[in-house]
Amino acid sequence: MFDEIHEECGVFGIFSKDPEIKVVEEAYLALFALQHRGQESCGIAVNDGGVIVSYKDLGLVPDVFNPVVMKHLEGGSMAVGHCRYATSKSANRENAQPLVSKYKKGTLALAYNGTLVNSAELRAELESTGAIFQTTNDAEIMLYLLARERINCPSIEMALKNVMKKLKGAYSLVLMSPSKLIAARDPKAIRPLCMGKIGESIVFASESCAFDTLGAEFIRDVEPGEIIVVSNEGITELKDESIDKSKCGLCCFEYIYTARPDSVIDGASVHFARQEAGRSLAKAYPVEADLVCGVPDSGLDAALGYALESGIPYGVGFIKNRYIGRTFIQSTQAQRERSVKIKLNILKSAVEGKRVVVVDDSIVRGTTTANTIKLLREAGAKEIHMRIASPPFINPCYFGTDIESKENLIACRLTIDEICKQIGADTFCFLDVDSVFNIAKGCKLGLCAGCFTGKYPIEIPTNQTENKYQQKIK
Amino acid sequence: MFDEIHEECGVFGIFSKDPEIKVVEEAYLALFALQHRGQESCGIAVNDGGVIVSYKDLGLVPDVFNPVVMKHLEGGSMAVGHCRYATSKSANRENAQPLVSKYKKGTLALAYNGTLVNSAELRAELESTGAIFQTTNDAEIMLYLLARERINCPSIEMALKNVMKKLKGAYSLVLMSPSKLIAARDPKAIRPLCMGKIGESIVFASESCAFDTLGAEFIRDVEPGEIIVVSNEGITELKDESIDKSKCGLCCFEYIYTARPDSVIDGASVHFARQEAGRSLAKAYPVEADLVCGVPDSGLDAALGYALESGIPYGVGFIKNRYIGRTFIQSTQAQRERSVKIKLNILKSAVEGKRVVVVDDSIVRGTTTANTIKLLREAGAKEIHMRIASPPFINPCYFGTDIESKENLIACRLTIDEICKQIGADTFCFLDVDSVFNIAKGCKLGLCAGCFTGKYPIEIPTNQTENKYQQKIK
Amino acid sequence: MFDEIHEECGVFGIFSKDPEIKVVEEAYLALFALQHRGQESCGIAVNDGGVIVSYKDLGLVPDVFNPVVMKHLEGGSMAVGHCRYATSKSANRENAQPLVSKYKKGTLALAYNGTLVNSAELRAELESTGAIFQTTNDAEIMLYLLARERINCPSIEMALKNVMKKLKGAYSLVLMSPSKLIAARDPKAIRPLCMGKIGESIVFASESCAFDTLGAEFIRDVEPGEIIVVSNEGITELKDESIDKSKCGLCCFEYIYTARPDSVIDGASVHFARQEAGRSLAKAYPVEADLVCGVPDSGLDAALGYALESGIPYGVGFIKNRYIGRTFIQSTQAQRERSVKIKLNILKSAVEGKRVVVVDDSIVRGTTTANTIKLLREAGAKEIHMRIASPPFINPCYFGTDIESKENLIACRLTIDEICKQIGADTFCFLDVDSVFNIAKGCKLGLCAGCFTGKYPIEIPTNQTENKYQQKIK
Amino acid sequence: MFDEIHEECGVFGIFSKDPEIKVVEEAYLALFALQHRGQESCGIAVNDGGVIVSYKDLGLVPDVFNPVVMKHLEGGSMAVGHCRYATSKSANRENAQPLVSKYKKGTLALAYNGTLVNSAELRAELESTGAIFQTTNDAEIMLYLLARERINCPSIEMALKNVMKKLKGAYSLVLMSPSKLIAARDPKAIRPLCMGKIGESIVFASESCAFDTLGAEFIRDVEPGEIIVVSNEGITELKDESIDKSKCGLCCFEYIYTARPDSVIDGASVHFARQEAGRSLAKAYPVEADLVCGVPDSGLDAALGYALESGIPYGVGFIKNRYIGRTFIQSTQAQRERSVKIKLNILKSAVEGKRVVVVDDSIVRGTTTANTIKLLREAGAKEIHMRIASPPFINPCYFGTDIESKENLIACRLTIDEICKQIGADTFCFLDVDSVFNIAKGCKLGLCAGCFTGKYPIEIPTNQTENKYQQKIK
Repeated sequence: MFDEIHEECGVFGIFSKDPEIKVVEEAYLALFALQHRGQESCGIAVNDGGVIVSYKDLGLVPDVFNPVVMKHLEGGSMAVGHCRYATSKSANRENAQPLVSKYKKGTLALAYNGTLVNSAELRAELESTGAIFQTTNDAEIMLYLLARERINCPSIEMALKNVMKKLKGAYSLVLMSPSKLIAARDPKAIRPLCMGKIGESIVFASESCAFDTLGAEFIRDVEPGEIIVVSNEGITELKDESIDKSKCGLCCFEYIYTARPDSVIDGASVHFARQEAGRSLAKAYPVEADLVCGVPDSGLDAALGYALESGIPYGVGFIKNRYIGRTFIQSTQAQRERSVKIKLNILKSAVEGKRVVVVDDSIVRGTTTANTIKLLREAGAKEIHMRIASPPFINPCYFGTDIESKENLIACRLTIDEICKQIGADTFCFLDVDSVFNIAKGCKLGLCAGCFTGKYPIEIPTNQTENKYQQKIK
Repeated sequence: MFDEIHEECGVFGIFSKDPEIKVVEEAYLALFALQHRGQESCGIAVNDGGVIVSYKDLGLVPDVFNPVVMKHLEGGSMAVGHCRYATSKSANRENAQPLVSKYKKGTLALAYNGTLVNSAELRAELESTGAIFQTTNDAEIMLYLLARERINCPSIEMALKNVMKKLKGAYSLVLMSPSKLIAARDPKAIRPLCMGKIGESIVFASESCAFDTLGAEFIRDVEPGEIIVVSNEGITELKDESIDKSKCGLCCFEYIYTARPDSVIDGASVHFARQEAGRSLAKAYPVEADLVCGVPDSGLDAALGYALESGIPYGVGFIKNRYIGRTFIQSTQAQRERSVKIKLNILKSAVEGKRVVVVDDSIVRGTTTANTIKLLREAGAKEIHMRIASPPFINPCYFGTDIESKENLIACRLTIDEICKQIGADTFCFLDVDSVFNIAKGCKLGLCAGCFTGKYPIEIPTNQTENKYQQKIK
Repeated sequence: MFDEIHEECGVFGIFSKDPEIKVVEEAYLALFALQHRGQESCGIAVNDGGVIVSYKDLGLVPDVFNPVVMKHLEGGSMAVGHCRYATSKSANRENAQPLVSKYKKGTLALAYNGTLVNSAELRAELESTGAIFQTTNDAEIMLYLLARERINCPSIEMALKNVMKKLKGAYSLVLMSPSKLIAARDPKAIRPLCMGKIGESIVFASESCAFDTLGAEFIRDVEPGEIIVVSNEGITELKDESIDKSKCGLCCFEYIYTARPDSVIDGASVHFARQEAGRSLAKAYPVEADLVCGVPDSGLDAALGYALESGIPYGVGFIKNRYIGRTFIQSTQAQRERSVKIKLNILKSAVEGKRVVVVDDSIVRGTTTANTIKLLREAGAKEIHMRIASPPFINPCYFGTDIESKENLIACRLTIDEICKQIGADTFCFLDVDSVFNIAKGCKLGLCAGCFTGKYPIEIPTNQTENKYQQKIK
Repeated sequence: MFDEIHEECGVFGIFSKDPEIKVVEEAYLALFALQHRGQESCGIAVNDGGVIVSYKDLGLVPDVFNPVVMKHLEGGSMAVGHCRYATSKSANRENAQPLVSKYKKGTLALAYNGTLVNSAELRAELESTGAIFQTTNDAEIMLYLLARERINCPSIEMALKNVMKKLKGAYSLVLMSPSKLIAARDPKAIRPLCMGKIGESIVFASESCAFDTLGAEFIRDVEPGEIIVVSNEGITELKDESIDKSKCGLCCFEYIYTARPDSVIDGASVHFARQEAGRSLAKAYPVEADLVCGVPDSGLDAALGYALESGIPYGVGFIKNRYIGRTFIQSTQAQRERSVKIKLNILKSAVEGKRVVVVDDSIVRGTTTANTIKLLREAGAKEIHMRIASPPFINPCYFGTDIESKENLIACRLTIDEICKQIGADTFCFLDVDSVFNIAKGCKLGLCAGCFTGKYPIEIPTNQTENKYQQKIK
């Protein structure tokens, strides 16, 4: 359900020897294509002959990267970029990425997507030997480890390889040194990362949709635990052949909600994964109805799947105000009460007198869903059959998806019947947990569905599991 | 096709004796719901005990009406608001509405949607007796005529009645005097205007979707030539019974493109009108295919209609970047070439190897359509059957829809076969002109389809018909 | 005393056939030089071959005229500009000047400095024949009268001549028609206006300091009641020879406070007028002391005069924060209490143990003066002899200087002895009223000292005299 | 001469147990009083019960600290603030101070004024053991050293004491730990730092003028090499009794240009130091003349001294536009040529036909002085005797004053006679180097006049002396 789950981050990197290609423009457009992964802040670092210049700020890509800033960043043959997810905390500029820092061997710029589960330990270890931290960002930990490792390592990629042995958690990263662009993905491949090319130029991005925007050709996904180095010497791939891909933990929520439907992640189309989730729902929880409609935008694909499978006509039940999100509406009393109405309107003529199947991607607190169903009733819907294209959220995510705390998750508090009653639906069904593992047709990796199952691809330190809730309670 | 046709304006008015209702907040939310009708500028005027305070500026509603401005406008029992369509000309703040002016009897605030065809004559006549004009806005002409008429008239509504005899063209207006809120619609009812209520408070808006956002109840459309006066004395309706509704000229393009799908205009649902256009296309121009998809957002409803009528499965073929329009992308070289890709991505997995019917609401210059089809081909679509849910644009609109000049309209330059070839489709069809008059099921008024037929509900002065093209050529 | 009196407006006009001269840049720099006359808003209108383009907004000249706006206004051979005085009312963009309007004969842009005393009558008269007013600015009245008069007049300057017969009050104006730049000054010459040249290009400005900034040569002051027309045909001077210059009423407060010290107005140096006021005070009210210092910035010149005349050493007693005024300090509780300290600091080492003569240009409410004297005492000044380089304010100004209402004027409430006691000085003296008429050595015109004497060069309508106080009480 | 020398930084710290005192407001007002020391960026960090929240950005104090930011920082009992000097490089937000970082023992916020001469060595040493640097700011080096030292130290102040042994250069710093506010000054006391109190609350600031603005009482200057710790346990002073104050090197340029005239630094009044410089010039280089005037603002005090000593009347020769600096004037061609005129105007009536002594604080490139003299000649000055209230700049400053490179310094290129000729004066004199050491009457410390003498209180590393010019040549 919109606005209740915060997106992930998006990363991008480019290495180009083509003088026609302006690396900052490519980064700008790629981040714009990845904007759905993070709207809080964004940044780009450009490497011009070993000198790295960067800019980052709170705000959307086209707002932050105005012509003056673009001019400031022009030139260069490498760039890394990042967009970061939205939180309610403002003024968090320091945490924006890429993080740029000087060390013994020059300058590094790092942008990553994910969360380390052992960051507290790593941080404590570093602090105990005199490290200082200016951000609360794991990127700073990684840069520290890299700087220290590099002292006794012949190359930055070897340093990275060693550092990766110490990192536990999710990270898909792009790293820029004075002469190299490096991409790497954690051994469980929890967050997506793929490689493409524009002519001879190499690009990396969190999602393939960025390549489509650039007109880049998709080459392949970065493999679990792999490090890819791009430099004037060419491309070097450091694969970890020991990894069993079926035991990886690619985040299933990327398919359910986070990624853009036009992306293909690790072999599976996001759009079709959602459609498949809808089909599974239709098979498992059929109902007699006149119309299937999805809650825009994230429920639309699954609704289409439900309609195709069930044979019930697909239709439009809601109109979303296309300007929502452009800028924050001033929060007045009137608006809080009307928050759903401002975003969505029921297409009364479509639902009036009808038995409607409403499909949404997920349910978090349940209040927005309840309001939506109330509006549907007022518009004259005769029956409302709510179908959620994912299983109940009952566990925290330790790898970067920002879900509500347990006490706010409706599925932690209520049974399915109670939820159905509370939100005012006639019937209510979740996608079965097992089905989650079958929606991403063609996916070459094992999936993490920890938020639904409580089983994670990495052991979670005890301080983390406790911390998770303390943090939320504050 | 997105971005090639500029929207109309949107108007709103409220009269409330309910102290719980903050009129400026209602106006804010209503304009936000009407934002699709105009993104260039917006304004609100509030009447607090006869004192009218106003604010207007270039920008989107939530940007212009920040908390400081909202505070400045708080209080009052009446408000009128306006949002204005986007043009390439910047810095046009003077032309924003509502236009507020003092005259002999106090202050008036006027917001209207439409265009007068005899404004040049009216302006010349006023100037010849010493009038000065600070804007190029027809609202200023109307206020002048009202001010002069009012001298010998017992009431502002009688003055308006007399003035309306002199006005030729499209105008749906809300007018606020120190003690009255007045709504009126031209005798041909070219632009929409409807009346609703929130409890005892009366509201007027260009489209009913604004009422849904406010939680207001729709009462009825303002009738052709009607004047409705709301004051402490109640509601007075000055109808013009002589008007033959079937000879009115409600703009058919409101149903095709301008209005929000969830609005109901003069008895007909916009969503269903578009769906019906799609159905008509399917009946008249069937084709064997595997998938029907619409160009987002304005082609989606017609695509659904085509799919329902033809039995070909409806699917998603394009993903639109949801952040497009949030803020203007910096115009770099790279971006101009890639303008379509930045906005839309093809859902390759959906169209690959398929025979695809692509439905769009209209075609203007044809270049965007050609680019879109090229991308579809690259994504592997086997056949592409383009269906346009409106007839060919071959004439100017004199009533406010901002269409390209003739030399840029593809339908003025090429035959249907030539268009098909130029844009690279396998087959290409327009909606038949006759069908336009049948899509808006339930519409109580005659329609104007002048942009397709060249027949207008009002005679167009010669200076206008010539001027139209001069203006564009500049 | 700083911040208690609001400045006037400043006007500028240029006519240039020299392609090297960019008229908008000249206007920008001239307005920047005249910025002290008005900080609320500013505007420039440029005439490029008869087409007038303008821009105006709230804010200081360099903020409003950013590169984008300057680009928008480039080109042209004529320009008029205006800066407007600061009030507490925000969001008053509509009232900014120049006022640009179309009328029968083309477009006019008008910028003026002053206030009409019969604007209510003129406005009522115009309204009774159907005029509408979008501003509360007298410029709109003038443009209306011009538009009406021009109907039966062969030229805009003849129309202006006739209109000036109807205007009562202060106005120094620049008017731009499609082909002419016109400057005019009211018959009493209440506000300054002068003419200069840059090569063959003609410029007009409120004060000569603007010419110095441009590197323009001062030609002469515009004479009382004179109209000067500049066009491709050359310069035409329409003088009113019937006017007795000694009966004019040039605002004496221009010399005391408003104008920049480096300006020469109607033959008299502003700096020397202030120095002379200080000398007069020294002659009339001598005192034994160790140091003479002025309250920055407006008391400095008179302090120097007092020192030179008395032989007491001139010194620096106060340091003003040079960033005051750059931007408004956020108004917190702490700051209100410390408002004087934030702006001024006492130079303790200079005043400690000294008998100090403190000179200020004027005293309005007296609270700031009292605070200043308190700080001086705390810094160890042994005696404080306050000298005000103008007589007591006891009457309103009807011609544009924005003085406090009577109940707030300390000189209306208290005797000189009471003032002395209340502000905490050892001695306290005002400049004698007679002396005011002698400070502006070389001034060719009679002066208006109405705010001190109650005698005005023009009869003030009764509604005005009453209105003046009602307005303030609101 | 204005605009040719860049100011230093300003620092502020407060420790308050008084609930009436809002520490962020005090910091805001203090930084506003210190704004002349740095206009590029500013920042405040607030400590609320051990949690440190901070905000910093490019811009002037009242612009950066808008109400939203102030709200974000409210509460707390300690704060440190900083304003940073202006450079042409934009977008340097990362380098703004205070620098806040977490380390083993909590969070530290550091703001300092000065420059280390051994920062390259320290940085290299830290990098060789794995440090990463996110800024180019010496504060980061200090925080690193503190973090490392603290591991084996019982308290932060002992760690600071040890770290100070490694630092070579100028630094006046305020450091905030979770429970302590610490101020320290380098052993040579190159930059000023003083302590005051508001009731029981303790404040530190670069200059005493900040205390006057706050209404704080001056206690004393921080001594060379001293560390002062303020905590709930009271005040602890760690003095270094071994330091010979007469061998310290307080920057003499603080007296000549940098500091505000109303500040008292290490016992000497800045205003009187400047006046004394003027007196010395008058004694050493007398001339027959009619008028002494200073170049605003920094030459005014010395001009007054020259006048008092010589008996030649002091007068105003220049009027500075009070809005200069409020915001950057758009740089157009016209403006570059007229840059002096835009800032300064000659008071023609004061200088015409006179023999004028013009006093300025310093001369850097000489071009502005030449322009000023040219304008004086045009205004009719008969003779122009230029007196510079400091010796010739011929050496770099390694401690933070940003002077031009040698090839741009007029005194490096030309003899005094050649300078006189080039700038067009009749006579031209510098203050003797010896006199510099006598102007600051009452100063308890030895002075550094390295920029004039080439003798520095600290040995400058060879890499620095070379680097200094490379840097400028870039």
